[in-house]
Amino acid sequence: MSEGVEWVLHTCLNLTWLPAGQAVPAAKLAAFYGLPAAYLNKQLQALARAGIVSSASGPRGGFRLARNPEKITLLDVVVAIEGADQAFRCEQLLRRGPGADPEVDYRQACLVSQAMRRADLAWRRELADQTLADLKAAVERRYPATPSNTVNRFVALRA
Amino acid sequence: MSEGVEWVLHTCLNLTWLPAGQAVPAAKLAAFYGLPAAYLNKQLQALARAGIVSSASGPRGGFRLARNPEKITLLDVVVAIEGADQAFRCEQLLRRGPGADPEVDYRQACLVSQAMRRADLAWRRELADQTLADLKAAVERRYPATPSNTVNRFVALRA
Repeated sequence: MSEGVEWVLHTCLNLTWLPAGQAVPAAKLAAFYGLPAAYLNKQLQALARAGIVSSASGPRGGFRLARNPEKITLLDVVVAIEGADQAFRCEQLLRRGPGADPEVDYRQACLVSQAMRRADLAWRRELADQTLADLKAAVERRYPATPSNTVNRFVALRA
Repeated sequence: MSEGVEWVLHTCLNLTWLPAGQAVPAAKLAAFYGLPAAYLNKQLQALARAGIVSSASGPRGGFRLARNPEKITLLDVVVAIEGADQAFRCEQLLRRGPGADPEVDYRQACLVSQAMRRADLAWRRELADQTLADLKAAVERRYPATPSNTVNRFVALRA
């Protein structure tokens, strides 16, 4: 999994602490953690294509969350960056095995493939069950200074 | 995930259908599905290091399962090939965030990292809950011809 996943999860979370509708330029989002701006920008574009953030140009432009944090799951964010493909690749090995039926789709019929898919689904279910709003609330309970620390750093970067 | 995972899952399953203790040379295991022998051999060596198969040299040598199929989980096989690292890489981004404490291990403390780890654990749990013996039994129920087809192909390859 690319390091971009960690970057955008934290970036999306940080955006939840800004006043609604406030956009942040990609360069400031990168400067927040000292990330390479061009590469983070690529990840932000992927989030935009997935409808997770929206971008506006102009002097008050930048990125903001495109949906309410209750409507953005961790799975949405991960899939926007990594794609929806399963980590396990089924090349339908059974097509080359004894008794193979060329009509059968072994990605469906093969029990090895099914077992790996069940594990993948368990992973997805766990990520789909948690929204950005849940994560935001959990951080606020555990680390109450984080929202103001975050806003203050954004303000300092704007100075 | 490398294609080797698919190869070795099927190869280990096929070994469950051979008479106990019968070893199969790596070249025959590769020929079973027309796989590149040198690359499959590398994967088999990784399984051997993980104690999943054992190898013997000599005219009746080759690979066999080193443990009872009830004692080999799908997770054991996947980890032998892919390593035990989580797919999500936590680079402790929070160390560069506002309010960072250099004493804290953010791989533990960060709630983003925890959420990703929970998903990883759900994936592992699913694979750890299924043994090669379970998979063997499921295949035998669903595809009763598979055990004899498998043995017959091994015999034909030996001819």
